[in-house]
Amino acid sequence: MSGDRPTEDGLIARFFAPLAGLGADGMRDDAATLTPSPGCDLVLTADAIVAGVHFFPDDPPASIARKAIGVNYSDLAAKGAAPRGILLTLALPDDWTEPWLEAFAGGLRDSLAAFGGALLGGDTVRAAGPLTIGVTALGEVPTGAMVRRMTAQVGDAICVGGSIGDAALGLLLRQSPPPDWAASLGGEARDVLVDRYWHPRPRLGLAPVLRRHARAAMDISDGLAGDLAKMLKGEGRSALIRVADVPLSPAAARAVTLRPDLMATVLTGGDDYEILCAVPPDALAACLAEAQALGLPLRPIGMVTAGEGPPVFEAANGLRTFFGAGSFSHF
Amino acid sequence: MSGDRPTEDGLIARFFAPLAGLGADGMRDDAATLTPSPGCDLVLTADAIVAGVHFFPDDPPASIARKAIGVNYSDLAAKGAAPRGILLTLALPDDWTEPWLEAFAGGLRDSLAAFGGALLGGDTVRAAGPLTIGVTALGEVPTGAMVRRMTAQVGDAICVGGSIGDAALGLLLRQSPPPDWAASLGGEARDVLVDRYWHPRPRLGLAPVLRRHARAAMDISDGLAGDLAKMLKGEGRSALIRVADVPLSPAAARAVTLRPDLMATVLTGGDDYEILCAVPPDALAACLAEAQALGLPLRPIGMVTAGEGPPVFEAANGLRTFFGAGSFSHF
Repeated sequence: MSGDRPTEDGLIARFFAPLAGLGADGMRDDAATLTPSPGCDLVLTADAIVAGVHFFPDDPPASIARKAIGVNYSDLAAKGAAPRGILLTLALPDDWTEPWLEAFAGGLRDSLAAFGGALLGGDTVRAAGPLTIGVTALGEVPTGAMVRRMTAQVGDAICVGGSIGDAALGLLLRQSPPPDWAASLGGEARDVLVDRYWHPRPRLGLAPVLRRHARAAMDISDGLAGDLAKMLKGEGRSALIRVADVPLSPAAARAVTLRPDLMATVLTGGDDYEILCAVPPDALAACLAEAQALGLPLRPIGMVTAGEGPPVFEAANGLRTFFGAGSFSHF
Repeated sequence: MSGDRPTEDGLIARFFAPLAGLGADGMRDDAATLTPSPGCDLVLTADAIVAGVHFFPDDPPASIARKAIGVNYSDLAAKGAAPRGILLTLALPDDWTEPWLEAFAGGLRDSLAAFGGALLGGDTVRAAGPLTIGVTALGEVPTGAMVRRMTAQVGDAICVGGSIGDAALGLLLRQSPPPDWAASLGGEARDVLVDRYWHPRPRLGLAPVLRRHARAAMDISDGLAGDLAKMLKGEGRSALIRVADVPLSPAAARAVTLRPDLMATVLTGGDDYEILCAVPPDALAACLAEAQALGLPLRPIGMVTAGEGPPVFEAANGLRTFFGAGSFSHF
C-alpha cells in the first residue's frame, strides 16, 4: 500500500464513524453492543456481494452500497423483521480510491437513512481480488414471530410482491453490447429495468403483514422458479403457478412482448428482491387487503400442491413447463 | 464453476448445517434468530482474514478456521463477553476443493466446540481472488458491562495476559527460506511459535475478570506497541512500559537471546490475540489474583501516564524507546 494512503483507522474515522449507531461508540471500540427491544428476538442474516459476480465493477459506488444493504434487508423483510443495523466487511482491491470509498459511504448512509438501522461495526481488509462486500444485518421481530422459509402447507396460496424479472432484464441491458431488443424497448423502460438491477427495494413495509398472515416466506434473490422450489423442497410439496398472474412491470411486460422468450428470464433470473410467501386460504383476503392498504400489493400467483418435483408453471393457453435446475445462482 | 461441483445449498447441507445452532434451523432458512440471555446485551464484532495477508494459503484448513474464529472471539474476550455464535462469509477462490472445505468445516466445528457458540448463518460466494473469510461474532455481557477500549485513566496499571510476540516470531519462521536464527532455536521452540501463529487462543476465561476489574481493555492483534497507542489515543494519555516485565514464552525468550533485535518484533508484531487492559490501582491486586486463580495470569507491565505521544518502552538499563508508526497493520 502506498505511503500516502490513509490507514484503516483513518478510513474508519473519515467514512464510517459518521454512520455509527448507538452502541457502536463512533467506531472507536473493537465491538458494539446491541439489545433487542423488550419482547423481541434478533434476526440475523449475512449476504456478500462480489464485483463481477453480483455487480459490475463500474456500477456507481452508491448503488453498490445500496445493493449490499438491500439484499440483506430484503431477507429481514421476508422474515417479518425490522432492521436494527449492520456490520460491514469490505475487502478492497489494490486499486481502490478515496473518491470511490467516499461515494460508497454516502450510499451506505443514504440507504441506512431510508431503510433504518445503523452501522454497528465491521472490518476493512485488502485483498488482491475483486471488491467483496460482506454485510451481516440484524433485525428484530416479536419473540417467536420470525416468518420461516420451510413451513408452507399444501393448499396455501402462493403470493409475490412488487414485480418479477425487472432486475434480470436490467442485468441483460447492462451487458456490452446490449441485447438486440434493447433499442426497441426505449430509453425510459431501459432505465427502469437497470434501476431495478442496481437498487433492490427491501419490502420492509410488508414485514408486519407477513408476520400476521404468512405461513412461510422468503425473498426472491435467485429467481422466482428456483426460490419457490427451495421454499417447498423435501416435504412432498410442489406448486402450480399461473404464469399470467405473475406481476410484471410495464417495462418488463414490454420486453416480453418484444421477445416472448424473455419470460424464462423473468421467471428464473435473479435479483428480484421481492417477497415470496405462502398464505393459508383463510388468511388470504386479509393479507392482500393489508398489503394493498400499505401500497405494497401482494399478488396470488398459484398454490402449494401435494407432490414431488419442481413447481409447475402453467401458461394462459394451458401449456405447462418447469425449470429443473433453472434457478439462477450466483455461486 | 465446473458442472460437477456441488451447489451452494449442497455445500451448506453437507458442511455447515451440522454446525448450526439453535435458532438457525439447520441452515434451512434465510436468517436465524437469537435472543440474549435475560439481563444481557449482545456484543458484536466483525473481522475478516485474507489468504496471503492474514494467513498463508497453504496453512492447514482447520488452522485457518481456528484463526477466523480466534481473532473474533479474542475481541469478545477483551470486551468481557461470552460467545453466542458466528455468521460466516466465505469468498472462495476458483480452485477450492471439497477436501479443503471439509477440513475447514472440521476446524470450525472443533473451534466452536472448544470456545462456545454455534454457527448462526452465513454466505458462500465465489470470488476470483484470494480466499477471504469474514466472521461476525456475537457474544453477550450483563447489561451495560461491556469493557470499553478508550476509557483508561492516568495512573491505571497496564496489564497483558499470556505471552507477547510468539505469533510474530512464528510468522517469521513460516517464511521461506526461514530466518538464519531458526536453526539455532531448535525444533520444539519453532513448533511452539508457529503454533501460536496458527492458533490464536481467545482468552475467554478472562472475560469476567475484565468486567469486574478492568477500566479499559482490547485484544492485541496488531502488536503491543501499536494497540497500546490505539487504546490511549487522543485524550492526553500515554504510557510507560517496562520492557523487562513484558511476558515472553520460553521459546520467544530464547529467540530474543539469540537475536536481541527480535525484541522490536515482539513488541510491534501482530497476531498475539492476548488481552491488553488498564486496571485502576485499587483493583489491581484482586484482578491479578483472580486471573492467576483461573490459570490465565495477567502481568502488570507499566502505567498510563499523562502526556501526548506514543507509549514509551523502557529497558532494564534505563534506555527508552518508542515505536512511532511501528504498529504492525494488516491493512
